[in-house]
Amino acid sequence: MKRFALVLAAVATLAGVVVSIVRASGQTEKGAAPIFVTKMPPGFRDWTVISVSHEAGNINSIGAVLGNDLAVKAYREGKLPFPDGTIIAAVHYTYVPSEENNKVFGRVQSFVAGPPTNVQFEVKDSKKYAATGGWGFGHFNKDGTLGNDALMQTCFPCHAKASRDLVFTQYAP
Amino acid sequence: MKRFALVLAAVATLAGVVVSIVRASGQTEKGAAPIFVTKMPPGFRDWTVISVSHEAGNINSIGAVLGNDLAVKAYREGKLPFPDGTIIAAVHYTYVPSEENNKVFGRVQSFVAGPPTNVQFEVKDSKKYAATGGWGFGHFNKDGTLGNDALMQTCFPCHAKASRDLVFTQYAP
Repeated sequence: MKRFALVLAAVATLAGVVVSIVRASGQTEKGAAPIFVTKMPPGFRDWTVISVSHEAGNINSIGAVLGNDLAVKAYREGKLPFPDGTIIAAVHYTYVPSEENNKVFGRVQSFVAGPPTNVQFEVKDSKKYAATGGWGFGHFNKDGTLGNDALMQTCFPCHAKASRDLVFTQYAP
Repeated sequence: MKRFALVLAAVATLAGVVVSIVRASGQTEKGAAPIFVTKMPPGFRDWTVISVSHEAGNINSIGAVLGNDLAVKAYREGKLPFPDGTIIAAVHYTYVPSEENNKVFGRVQSFVAGPPTNVQFEVKDSKKYAATGGWGFGHFNKDGTLGNDALMQTCFPCHAKASRDLVFTQYAP
């Protein structure tokens, strides 16, 4: 009986671990396949600009959305859905007025990128990320650490509302 | 006497032409060496992002500043003045709210790049552009035509007020 209880406890613990992994990964199927992008793709900072944007209000952000070669090709050719291997990166900064520029202009006109805030990724892999529309999402804080689970869980449901293959950003020619 | 008058008229005309060229080019020395950048550098749209900015008010622009390899290297190493061969490009778009994004967010929060407005360049060549601080300036309208002379004349005096080698934009890491 004691042994059975131990086994039960072990199973429960294991089940807990599995549930934790499933919850953390957001995968619907069992297993530890990661749903999130956990490493920044090398060289992304030099990728081509897809577009730029400003998020006002409490986000108070300005940023650029960059794409690897596959992303840029798909955007320019208007191809949807994006092919596997597509990576889209968003580099975000605090939105700040430029004191120097505004002095020259004689008015508060110029808003620029202040300190970096985060970098986000969408990585297309229709098998690996099947549970989240074929996209893996990643959020990296300014110190390079991953965004917390609660934050990471918000990526997919929000991007699922985008009308073009879970991507909001459109190409700026 | 008539011949002398004709010669005088010819000289005056020629002088007028020279003055026009000098005025249009902004060069202080005589000659037709162009002060302005008159051709878009090939491949600039794929260059690395230096930073992003929004110009409010009647300019109502959002854009990205891009750099060729020399520009990016100098920026990242904090080298001033920029070396000859540096090219900095600014791609500008109309600043517009994103209807799709704001619908998802439930508020007017997201501002993105709308239709393109112009592309501007600073090309470093300390000999060719000696009269304008070593930089050649170029403004291209959305249809690819050059900005008019009156507009082009405004580039140098304004950029001369920038504190870092006639360049306003600072690198966003």
